[in-house]
Amino acid sequence: MAEDNKNIAAAFADLSTAIEADDLPSVARQLTQLHPADIGDFLESISPDRRAIVWEQLDPEIVGEVLLELPESIRSDFVDRMDTAHLVEVVHQLDMDDIADLIPDLPDEVIAEILFALDKQDRERLDTVLSYAEDTAGGLMNIDAVTVRENITLEVVMRYLRRRGDLPDQTNALFVVDRNDRLIGTLLLRKLLTADPSRRVGEIMNREPVSFHATQSEEEVAAAFEKYNLVTAPVTDETGKMLGRITVDDVVDVIREHAQYSVMAPAGLREDEDIFAPVVRSSRNRAVWLGVNLATAVLASVIIGFFESTIQKVVALAVLMPIVASMGGNAGTQTVVLVVRGMALGTITRRNANQVLLRELAVSLLNSILWAAVVAAVAVVWYKEPKLGLVIGLAMSINLIAAALSGVVIPLAVKRLGVDPALASGVVLTTVTDIVGFLSFLGLAAWLLV
Amino acid sequence: MAEDNKNIAAAFADLSTAIEADDLPSVARQLTQLHPADIGDFLESISPDRRAIVWEQLDPEIVGEVLLELPESIRSDFVDRMDTAHLVEVVHQLDMDDIADLIPDLPDEVIAEILFALDKQDRERLDTVLSYAEDTAGGLMNIDAVTVRENITLEVVMRYLRRRGDLPDQTNALFVVDRNDRLIGTLLLRKLLTADPSRRVGEIMNREPVSFHATQSEEEVAAAFEKYNLVTAPVTDETGKMLGRITVDDVVDVIREHAQYSVMAPAGLREDEDIFAPVVRSSRNRAVWLGVNLATAVLASVIIGFFESTIQKVVALAVLMPIVASMGGNAGTQTVVLVVRGMALGTITRRNANQVLLRELAVSLLNSILWAAVVAAVAVVWYKEPKLGLVIGLAMSINLIAAALSGVVIPLAVKRLGVDPALASGVVLTTVTDIVGFLSFLGLAAWLLV
Repeated sequence: MAEDNKNIAAAFADLSTAIEADDLPSVARQLTQLHPADIGDFLESISPDRRAIVWEQLDPEIVGEVLLELPESIRSDFVDRMDTAHLVEVVHQLDMDDIADLIPDLPDEVIAEILFALDKQDRERLDTVLSYAEDTAGGLMNIDAVTVRENITLEVVMRYLRRRGDLPDQTNALFVVDRNDRLIGTLLLRKLLTADPSRRVGEIMNREPVSFHATQSEEEVAAAFEKYNLVTAPVTDETGKMLGRITVDDVVDVIREHAQYSVMAPAGLREDEDIFAPVVRSSRNRAVWLGVNLATAVLASVIIGFFESTIQKVVALAVLMPIVASMGGNAGTQTVVLVVRGMALGTITRRNANQVLLRELAVSLLNSILWAAVVAAVAVVWYKEPKLGLVIGLAMSINLIAAALSGVVIPLAVKRLGVDPALASGVVLTTVTDIVGFLSFLGLAAWLLV
Repeated sequence: MAEDNKNIAAAFADLSTAIEADDLPSVARQLTQLHPADIGDFLESISPDRRAIVWEQLDPEIVGEVLLELPESIRSDFVDRMDTAHLVEVVHQLDMDDIADLIPDLPDEVIAEILFALDKQDRERLDTVLSYAEDTAGGLMNIDAVTVRENITLEVVMRYLRRRGDLPDQTNALFVVDRNDRLIGTLLLRKLLTADPSRRVGEIMNREPVSFHATQSEEEVAAAFEKYNLVTAPVTDETGKMLGRITVDDVVDVIREHAQYSVMAPAGLREDEDIFAPVVRSSRNRAVWLGVNLATAVLASVIIGFFESTIQKVVALAVLMPIVASMGGNAGTQTVVLVVRGMALGTITRRNANQVLLRELAVSLLNSILWAAVVAAVAVVWYKEPKLGLVIGLAMSINLIAAALSGVVIPLAVKRLGVDPALASGVVLTTVTDIVGFLSFLGLAAWLLV
């Protein structure tokens, strides 16, 4: 399987060829050789009509697993097209935890049928998971944790495990609970395997495992998994009662989703944007963002409009003004990116925001001196007009310092308004740097040049 | 430990108070209560002079672990300040794998002393890890994999493990090798614990584990861990000989670093940018990026310069021209972000690039019709000049379509030139949309209006 990574590109190419040739038996055969995750990737990389063709050829046994691997937007397309009976059948083949993950995307009648078919205990466990928001530890947890008591010997634990049969995926620890199901520790499998079998669980368990309350946010969970190198961790309710466990594979997905989000959100895109979504749907999503941008661009134009008579007298101003705005936008974006990242990592808080601001101002002061001089020189060489150099140099300095100030203040202010800084900071910043850039340059020109 | 996440902010605040009060014993005491990873975060969030104070109060036993948790730029500051004897002592307390991670940042004389103090086998193993680039499976692997033979019984494996004592962190599987040390399978601990002890390793091992060649890239490793939900995976050389294992905690770090990079690189920032680096160092890093941006801004100004006489006649052009350039930049950025992400995920390749291009063109065509109409209306209402509306509407359409085209083509072209698309695509794109925006708007105006 070592060469799998390289072969997947080849497998996708072969599949595409078979689809183009309309050789459905070959498509079906090739699909059986792929991992559901790879099939998910392949579906994402082809157009919707081809997705439908591939979907028809899928082994019914793995349809559920492939559904789980698809981004939400594509998954819901398929769910919409399946009839209730088929969906119920597909969902029933999945683990309880996976069912919980799918539930939010399923139609009500399917959910009702699924709940109806479960036994009481499973229904209660599913209810527990569903009672927590998707982006909390409770929403992230699996309900397949294996628990043991602290007063039994490792020998007995091992006998119990052998009788029980296989353990859930990603199990690296058993959870130790008291008679009221309250979490009191974790027993790592590697300790279980290497300690003297006659010792008791309580003697070798970890009494202070990293654990989560069900209502903690998934960001906190991800940060703790990353920091403490966890593979699994227990989840409890507010009384300490064991509810389930979180596994690192789900945490990796959270980290990846947040990473997607932090790249997509500043461009006004959804993190699960489908490259082959219907054109009209995509156009509508993007139009909203372009509309916001148009409003800010018109605002900048209004500022320029105040200075029409100045520009008419010194047309060089029209030529040079985008430089001032653009440098401010770029410098400010650097600060915004740093601050938004620091806020997400927790290294920038209100506690040290003043220090960060002072430092960014110092950095921008140095850069403003450098670039004011360069830009002034460019302007003087180009237009042989020293005063124009003075004006653009001053305006550049003002805008770079405004950029540093806004770059720190805007993300903090946006967050305090309850808006996600990653989403809104960039567009607010460039609006500020455009306005300050045009206003300072044209204003100084009107004052000093005309 | 459940409340830890909330308490860490409080702990950091207390530490800051103690530092400000110059209460060093209290600083030292508080530090002993923190995880090395948390100490790393705290150091990152304070200024360099305070970092030095905290550093002096650290328990010598954990100095090495804290070093490992710091971003490279801060780590190297501390390494530079420690003398050779102290560094050698600190590094010796670490695991072989962690030493391998630190080696690239250590001065030559420290490396020499460390190698000198190792026994032959450890030196050979360290040599093996160091012979692979940091961003490959070989550079990522740990050399603490526990191996067993396939013809022994599980009973014997368990006896061996008990005699051996504790297993390395994150061990969820043993690796099965033949007499030539070639990997033939993996034995999950959970299978070992639940199967009949009289069975042989070969009967219950997984004969087709996901494994990596030492030279595979860390991106491929991360993608496979994510896709196949791995906790650990074996690494072999090209002959299939077992070299080590990769653990999910290191993969999580890779994913996080790549995520940082994809946010920081487009803004011209290093992914480990230190918010409290010396001002001069930061200014220099950022100046390079601002210089690149200035060059592109001047290029746009040169374009505008061609049309000075046109602008002088119709000054409204100067007022409206930033709108056309800005809308193109925003629309194109959306496409670039989508395409760069798709290329990184493997869902956009040369195989489907044409389809992606057609789709983006269709999306931009719809948006160009909408926004051309809106912008034309704004211009006509503002300046009561229908021809101006026609010009800006046409220019807007041209620029939005150019933006879609460039948004797909630039990342693919940049990659083919061997440059990272995440780094360079954005700046090339906005240069194109600025030039096309100004050229089409002012060019059409010169032709139709004057």
